[in-house]
Amino acid sequence: MKKQLGPSDAIFPVPAALIVCGTNENANIITLAWVGIASSTPPTIGISVRQSRYSLGLIRNTGEFSVNFPGASIFKEVDYCGITTGRRRNKFKDTGFTPMASRKIKPPIIKECPYNIECRVSQEIILGDYVHILGEIFESHVDEDKVDTSKRAGFDVLKINPLVYFAEAREYWSVGEKLGYGFNAGKDIKKKIKKP
Amino acid sequence: MKKQLGPSDAIFPVPAALIVCGTNENANIITLAWVGIASSTPPTIGISVRQSRYSLGLIRNTGEFSVNFPGASIFKEVDYCGITTGRRRNKFKDTGFTPMASRKIKPPIIKECPYNIECRVSQEIILGDYVHILGEIFESHVDEDKVDTSKRAGFDVLKINPLVYFAEAREYWSVGEKLGYGFNAGKDIKKKIKKP
Repeated sequence: MKKQLGPSDAIFPVPAALIVCGTNENANIITLAWVGIASSTPPTIGISVRQSRYSLGLIRNTGEFSVNFPGASIFKEVDYCGITTGRRRNKFKDTGFTPMASRKIKPPIIKECPYNIECRVSQEIILGDYVHILGEIFESHVDEDKVDTSKRAGFDVLKINPLVYFAEAREYWSVGEKLGYGFNAGKDIKKKIKKP
Repeated sequence: MKKQLGPSDAIFPVPAALIVCGTNENANIITLAWVGIASSTPPTIGISVRQSRYSLGLIRNTGEFSVNFPGASIFKEVDYCGITTGRRRNKFKDTGFTPMASRKIKPPIIKECPYNIECRVSQEIILGDYVHILGEIFESHVDEDKVDTSKRAGFDVLKINPLVYFAEAREYWSVGEKLGYGFNAGKDIKKKIKKP
């Protein structure tokens, strides 16, 4: 049996991603869970920001932002950047995060996040109190000590130790164990079906 | 030091969500990782589908779809629905998944997925080979045995045992341990900053 919970924005898991906007001189960090890939061709990310947020103006000023994916060990810093406004605080200074120059955009990336992407705004869609911003991805970075060329992604998920978030539950989690591989695990079912 | 990996659609974690489209009579399931919340007001989800996919026509026919979030134990069935086309196979039959009537839309939900949402298409954006579909969320369902009214989300993440996916790495994972709470864990840093 199922219980109905009404219209809800609870989905899981989601990233707790750190969006950096502005320039090296006035860079700000905002933590967002409303982050997903919108296309693979060209690689495009969708992020959604409340219209009242300070970061929205900074994103619009440059038309650019970086998205920084944290490891589980820095979940307190991640949360801090979500509950503090850049109008009054320098979140790089407060968290001890180090801005690193991007390759193709003005906003920096965060050194302490193991994986980072550089994006340029391609489209904005107003949805109620939120702006859904589509950004084309022009570059990605991974910590050199997490590189593993034997892995399909070019890095080792375990070394990244990614942070997992459950937005409506408001819970931060680590990953547990690797269960199997995409485009592969389902072959067991294909085999069973083929048997007479 | 960082290594550059070029333009990439790798972000993590992402859901491996089962989208159901069509009607009870011709329902099909498609597994998508390109799933994220686009707005909280009104609750709106964004899903991205390759234009060549069979399911796209089914979604357009009714203007409706359900999104079903699986537990870790059914990762093989989840993968099967991603590597098999509904043009030739009945994926409900092949996986043993049970369609349950939705409350507000024609496509059913999947009983074996602990959490389910019902959506109506509000907008379509063409992005290269993909269609980014925005769908307003009108209803959500959770298994009664996962309900926990002491939890903020109304259900227990641990009982859901959610499936976590790393799209570019193509790896399915379970969750590990709960690290802390959103809108709370960052307060430790706030306190430190306030100290003289």
